[in-house]
This record gives sequence, structure tokens and C-alpha cells, in this order.
Amino acid sequence: IELAVDGGEHPDTISTLTGDPLAGVPVNYTGERHDLAAVRLLAPVIPRSKVVGVGRNYAEHAAEMGNELPAAPLLFFKPNTTVIGPDETILRPEGCTDLHFEGELAVVIGSRRTSSGRDVYCKRVPVEQAAEWVFGYTIANDVTARDWQAADDQWARAKGSDTFLPLGPWINTHVPLEEAASLSIETRVGDEVKQSGSTSQMVHGIAELISYISASITLLPGDVILTGTPAGVGPMVAGDEVHVSIDGLGTLSNPVAEA
Amino acid sequence: IELAVDGGEHPDTISTLTGDPLAGVPVNYTGERHDLAAVRLLAPVIPRSKVVGVGRNYAEHAAEMGNELPAAPLLFFKPNTTVIGPDETILRPEGCTDLHFEGELAVVIGSRRTSSGRDVYCKRVPVEQAAEWVFGYTIANDVTARDWQAADDQWARAKGSDTFLPLGPWINTHVPLEEAASLSIETRVGDEVKQSGSTSQMVHGIAELISYISASITLLPGDVILTGTPAGVGPMVAGDEVHVSIDGLGTLSNPVAEA
Repeated sequence: IELAVDGGEHPDTISTLTGDPLAGVPVNYTGERHDLAAVRLLAPVIPRSKVVGVGRNYAEHAAEMGNELPAAPLLFFKPNTTVIGPDETILRPEGCTDLHFEGELAVVIGSRRTSSGRDVYCKRVPVEQAAEWVFGYTIANDVTARDWQAADDQWARAKGSDTFLPLGPWINTHVPLEEAASLSIETRVGDEVKQSGSTSQMVHGIAELISYISASITLLPGDVILTGTPAGVGPMVAGDEVHVSIDGLGTLSNPVAEA
Repeated sequence: IELAVDGGEHPDTISTLTGDPLAGVPVNYTGERHDLAAVRLLAPVIPRSKVVGVGRNYAEHAAEMGNELPAAPLLFFKPNTTVIGPDETILRPEGCTDLHFEGELAVVIGSRRTSSGRDVYCKRVPVEQAAEWVFGYTIANDVTARDWQAADDQWARAKGSDTFLPLGPWINTHVPLEEAASLSIETRVGDEVKQSGSTSQMVHGIAELISYISASITLLPGDVILTGTPAGVGPMVAGDEVHVSIDGLGTLSNPVAEA
């Protein structure tokens, strides 16, 4: 059973559906419907293969960190053990002293079924065909141990520790690529606005990222691309609640605690 | 159906078993038996969560690359789309001009079942308990696009491209930790020996790696740790066949071609 948001005729409700929409086959609605406020949403996807992050993809964020803009997308991986859902707790691991939020637009990759019924995957995709491989969009908090990022040569611990990837609250499958490329994105800690930007500020756009990654790394259905964070990143401490909002995608909220 | 090597009474044969040994439940042998030469072995595990690589974990290899030894283990991730099995082809991706082999000992992580029947996972494990979480050992070729590694800030493309992780030929589940810590490891390209070392040369040992990683990153059953490569790494080109051999674990052979 999967849950999907129906934002149309039945606002603030969810309807139950059967089948895995990411498997590329038709799904069926059971007719069952629940108030959104009455259910607990889990992470809308646990990638079976990978999460590909993109560093320094907003010029002002690269500048605030004292970094130059990379000529090509700067890629890193987060394992699926980082994923938590809406309202689940971000845990500061022992030894980490500077835990940062990074609000981001997340792209969920799908597959395609050919007319002969064969499933094909996102591999060596030209920029102009990239949109066909997007299953939908959701919100991510690319949690980063900033002290470990500075200390370690590679970002595996800094970006890949448990609970370091809140995803949700749901996947919107009805956003055209051109619309996804100009959405307002805002991160608040408590009531205070920390990041306020637009996905139009990305250095490397969504289609370019899909094409660049898939040139050597096959993206499987349910894989997630984190498209980078705007300026304004900063620390989260135990007791904080962090909210990332994107136009049309809702708000992803997570409390912070010590591990 | 899973296949396991019986190196005891029936040399060079494999026996069929049912159930997933990594799921932590007893498996059953069906009694069926095949000649090893008559079957095609696949990768012995496709990690459902992650492969954690360890860079510069042999002093002579760090030196040959002009790098200092990191004080703590240098971790990176490879996604499960890198995994190929014995005799499958390593593909040089377009644009990569310097594809290197790195023969390595791979540790496959398991889980434990408590007396009350609950499965527990490898998380915050002290060094002295690390051995209990090892499911078994296999051989890896941590294929690396050396030019991309130099060009990119993070090693995602350089280490994470398709076919960049041959694993196999099987998982040996009967190697005590102290034995795994002193195995001869040799890499050949064709007939020429390129790497010849011992796992005793690791800077950070197997138990220390499991403890260090699991302090912040939960290791799930089937996750793989690549323990680093000895000195002697070098290029592979289309038409080469690369063989990595480790005492008691067999030989992992893979041809190389253009993507």
C-alpha cells in the first residue's frame, strides 16, 4: 500500500493506492481516504540504490563557504541509511560539534517502459530527454556535519551518517521540469528564516545534472538527486525544529536531538 | 536459491542451498551439487544499502600516490550499481583516460539475532566486538578512474561509475578475523604481477574499520567494506584481463572493455 496526496478535489486528504508507482506499472486507488492530519507520513522513498548529492550548486552558497564554483557538478553519495521521514528526529552523532541544515529540492528518478514492455533505466541520457526520467519531486534536508566535512578528505561521514537525510513530506509527480526550475525554497529553524532562495539559482540545472550523472552512473527507479542548497546554511542544535518549504511541495519538518 | 562453495569433502563443486544466509536465518542444503567449472557465478552479494571504501589504508600505496596517511580511516561510498560478478566486464566510461585496478579484501557485514528472536544491526560496535558482525570475506577490485579522481573534489564519479566494483568469486564465511588480518593478496594484469602484499599491512585493521564506520553509519546485512589496496596500482586497458587473488578466497577475474 502506498499513499498519495490528492491536492485537487479533496484538499488535505490522502488516498490509499495499491502497487508501487516507482515500478512503472499502473497503480490503483482503493477509494479509501484519510485526513492528512490523522496519518503519520513516512519517507516517501527509500532508495534501493543511491542518493546522489550535488555540492556548491548555488553560487551564493559556494561563496559563503569560501569555495569556488566547480566547473562540472560536484557529486557525492549518501547511503539509504541516512533517510528519515517527516517529523522523524535528526540525530547529532557523538563527536560532531557543528551540525548544519541544507534545504534542497530532491529529484526522484523513475524508469520507462518501452512499447514492447521492457523496462529501461536512466543511463546516458541527453540533456533534452532528461525530463522523461523524472518520477517526481520532494524536499530534502541534506544534513551535514560541517566539522567532519572540514576534517575529512571525503564527505562520507560528514554527509552519510544515520538520519542525515530527511525526505518528504510526499513526492509531487505533477511538476513539469520548467516549473521545478523556478520554485521558491525556504528553510526555517523554529520561526527564523535562514535560507530563502529559488531553484532558478542552480548553477547546473536539473536536466544537466541527470545527464551528467547518468553518463557514467546508471540511475535506478527510486534513486534521488539532491540538487544543492542556496545560501544561508547554518547550525542546528538539540531542541531545534527545522522546516524546509518549497512551492507546491509542502513543508518538511524535523526535530533535532543528540544521538 | 543461493550457491555456496564447499571446499571440504567435495572440492571444486558448489552445492545449492535455499534461503538467504544474510537474513540471519538457518539455510538448508538441497543436496544438489554442481561442478564449479560448469556454472556461471554471479556477484555473491548486491548490497541493499551501501559499500564503504577506505582510501590510503596501506602505507606504501599512499606513498606511491604522493599522499600522506590519514589519521582516521578515509571513507567513501560506492553505490550498488557499481557491482559486477566474476568474469563480467569492467567498462571504461567515455571520457575516462586512466582506469586503474585496486585489488582489495572485502568484508561482508551480517546481522545478529538476539535470544528473543530480534534482529540487531551493526551500529556503534566496539573494536573488540567487531568480529561478531562479519558475515564473511570476498575479493574486490575497487576500480578507479584515476584522472577523474584527480579532477573531481569528491570521488563519486571516479569510484562510483557502473561496473567499478567486481566482487567475488564467493563469500568465505569460515575465516576468523585474525586470519583475515594476514592474508596474501596479489593482483595480476594478464600474467604480470602488479600488486603483491598482505592484509597485515593495513593501517587501520578490519575491527577498527567496523567500529569507526558503525559509530555514525549503521551497517546493514550485505553491506560491504573495502579495506584498501596495497602498493602497485596501475592502469587497465581494453583487452586486459585483471585477476585479484587472496589466500583462501580464490581469484576474481574480469576482462576490461570500452563502454
